[in-house]
Amino acid sequence: MAIEESSVVAAASKSAKFWLDRGGFKTKIISTTKIGQVHFTFNGEFAKLNSFFKAIKQQLIDDAKPITLNMDKRGGGILDIELRDKTQELNNYYQLHATFETLDAMGANFINSCLEQFATTLRHQAEEFDGFNAEEKNIQIIMSILSNYVPDCLVRAEVNCPISELNEDKTLSATEFADKFIQAVKIAEVEPYRAVTHNKGVMNGVDAVVLATGNDFRAIEAGVHAYASRNGKYTSLTHAKVEDGIFSFWIEIPLALGTVGGLTNLHPLVKLALELLHHPTARELMQIVAVAGLAQNFAALRSLITTGIQEGHMKMHLMNILNQFHANDDEKSAIVDHFKKNIITHSAVVEAINDLRNKN
Amino acid sequence: MAIEESSVVAAASKSAKFWLDRGGFKTKIISTTKIGQVHFTFNGEFAKLNSFFKAIKQQLIDDAKPITLNMDKRGGGILDIELRDKTQELNNYYQLHATFETLDAMGANFINSCLEQFATTLRHQAEEFDGFNAEEKNIQIIMSILSNYVPDCLVRAEVNCPISELNEDKTLSATEFADKFIQAVKIAEVEPYRAVTHNKGVMNGVDAVVLATGNDFRAIEAGVHAYASRNGKYTSLTHAKVEDGIFSFWIEIPLALGTVGGLTNLHPLVKLALELLHHPTARELMQIVAVAGLAQNFAALRSLITTGIQEGHMKMHLMNILNQFHANDDEKSAIVDHFKKNIITHSAVVEAINDLRNKN
Repeated sequence: MAIEESSVVAAASKSAKFWLDRGGFKTKIISTTKIGQVHFTFNGEFAKLNSFFKAIKQQLIDDAKPITLNMDKRGGGILDIELRDKTQELNNYYQLHATFETLDAMGANFINSCLEQFATTLRHQAEEFDGFNAEEKNIQIIMSILSNYVPDCLVRAEVNCPISELNEDKTLSATEFADKFIQAVKIAEVEPYRAVTHNKGVMNGVDAVVLATGNDFRAIEAGVHAYASRNGKYTSLTHAKVEDGIFSFWIEIPLALGTVGGLTNLHPLVKLALELLHHPTARELMQIVAVAGLAQNFAALRSLITTGIQEGHMKMHLMNILNQFHANDDEKSAIVDHFKKNIITHSAVVEAINDLRNKN
Repeated sequence: MAIEESSVVAAASKSAKFWLDRGGFKTKIISTTKIGQVHFTFNGEFAKLNSFFKAIKQQLIDDAKPITLNMDKRGGGILDIELRDKTQELNNYYQLHATFETLDAMGANFINSCLEQFATTLRHQAEEFDGFNAEEKNIQIIMSILSNYVPDCLVRAEVNCPISELNEDKTLSATEFADKFIQAVKIAEVEPYRAVTHNKGVMNGVDAVVLATGNDFRAIEAGVHAYASRNGKYTSLTHAKVEDGIFSFWIEIPLALGTVGGLTNLHPLVKLALELLHHPTARELMQIVAVAGLAQNFAALRSLITTGIQEGHMKMHLMNILNQFHANDDEKSAIVDHFKKNIITHSAVVEAINDLRNKN
């Protein structure tokens, strides 16, 4: 996990340990389709544009063959190209909306190269299309670019166990724990101010693995948060329920990841991370990353509904500050003792270190 | 800028150079309010809860004084606490919705510590409140946590110049450039598949500075993308227009950043980054980060509407692969020449290197 927040790693470990004896994490790839679009304007009749598109669709695919050859051989490539009429949204605005299977590559370069070729073919073919008048021949390409919104590149991760096994907390019974946990998830489902932070916690785990494996975390973040807002109101990415005495907690998120291409061969620590993960395929990495997100969210909710988030967090913060001041073991133990009864702030810790050192 | 994608740094430099002679980037802090919530359930009459809240509001603030003392002295602290009735969304669900000014700190620890204190006071005071019956006294705290959704911690960045100065492209006139640029922004405003990638480009710049300065990029990402979806449809963070012959391009984004506390004193490279930026205040850093985002988006759109994104991107990718194979200067120049006429893929580059080396 590559991350600046030490409590993320601690939380992942705690969740992993908790679920290890309770059936572990279960995952499922739902879909792996990626998306790219050629955005263009066309000043003319839609019916004509549509016949033109049907006439050149195969040509679009054929002209991209030099780019798709290797991907085709491995079983991926262009899945489909649609013409979409977006003139309700913007005058004369249309799209080629293309779908792709990019296997173990994240596919940004592959998709963008295909799309730029589609745009070239589209423009040239339009100039030569007999059914178009002069104005219609003059298709304007605005831009050609993949979409990081990939609601059909989805993975699910889940944990479940009998309620009775949720019995590790000192202050809550197993049933109280389940009830309070589900309530906390429901709050994230209905209240955007909470949902944003709830999902931020999921992304603590997701990004730490995304970064470590050389993937592009901005792409993942954008796609995931847009997915969280897809029904018009920003909401939780995770869900929980109890059914027939079984507690379940799950996530479904879109993740367009790669384990070949891009940085994966270029960065020595990325190579190491992929080695640690036993060289996963992109599908396997989707599952690992989804689990990291779910585990992180479980740990955060567990802290929030029991001790509160600050207890563990401030312990870590205290150790970070002590390390910054090169505190030795005796100093550390004295100061940790001191802050069992006092509020941890950066200035309070600095003061305590200075006091201790002036005393000795 | 701390980022794995080399073209992000190139794009920022290109935009900076372009706007340097055209009036530069202008910025404005709109607001700096941060938010935290105590989520709780109360089984009783809202009117009673409301009188209770009014009775204890000052106590909530007073009990947090040991935490807020230093922040108060510097001019920040708790701005307000509201009681919010959320029972329409979920049975018996209420919030203390609190607002904070945290000055140069991002404020997560400060806010969370305040909220946990509010929760303790709320629970204890309820137990002793004469107006409550036994059930009403039993307020259940679900959790206390800051929100990363900060629509009132907003910064604006802008560039503008006469259309005639948009004259650097070989294929488009200044007017054509302005028209096509505005069209590309409008597409991101109306089409979520494009908006997600458009905003991802903004975040390339934002995150690179957020990471370099030791801030939490998951918090920033979550808040920004939720803001992009605030009106029920995910949309562009940037906007563009021409008015009276002046081209304008701007962004407004929520950024809760810190330049003290957290990692800022702990990580040597964060210290260096803050030094390079001349030790900015949090308000100044908000402005710098917003500019990085706007600059990045300008560069991306400029590439997209002219040469396409792949030309520059694949040049960088080619150099990354050549460096991986420790190509010398002669090899680099021969292979760059070769790929002026051929399509760059990882395997094609490897093949070209092998061919060249076998020839020699």
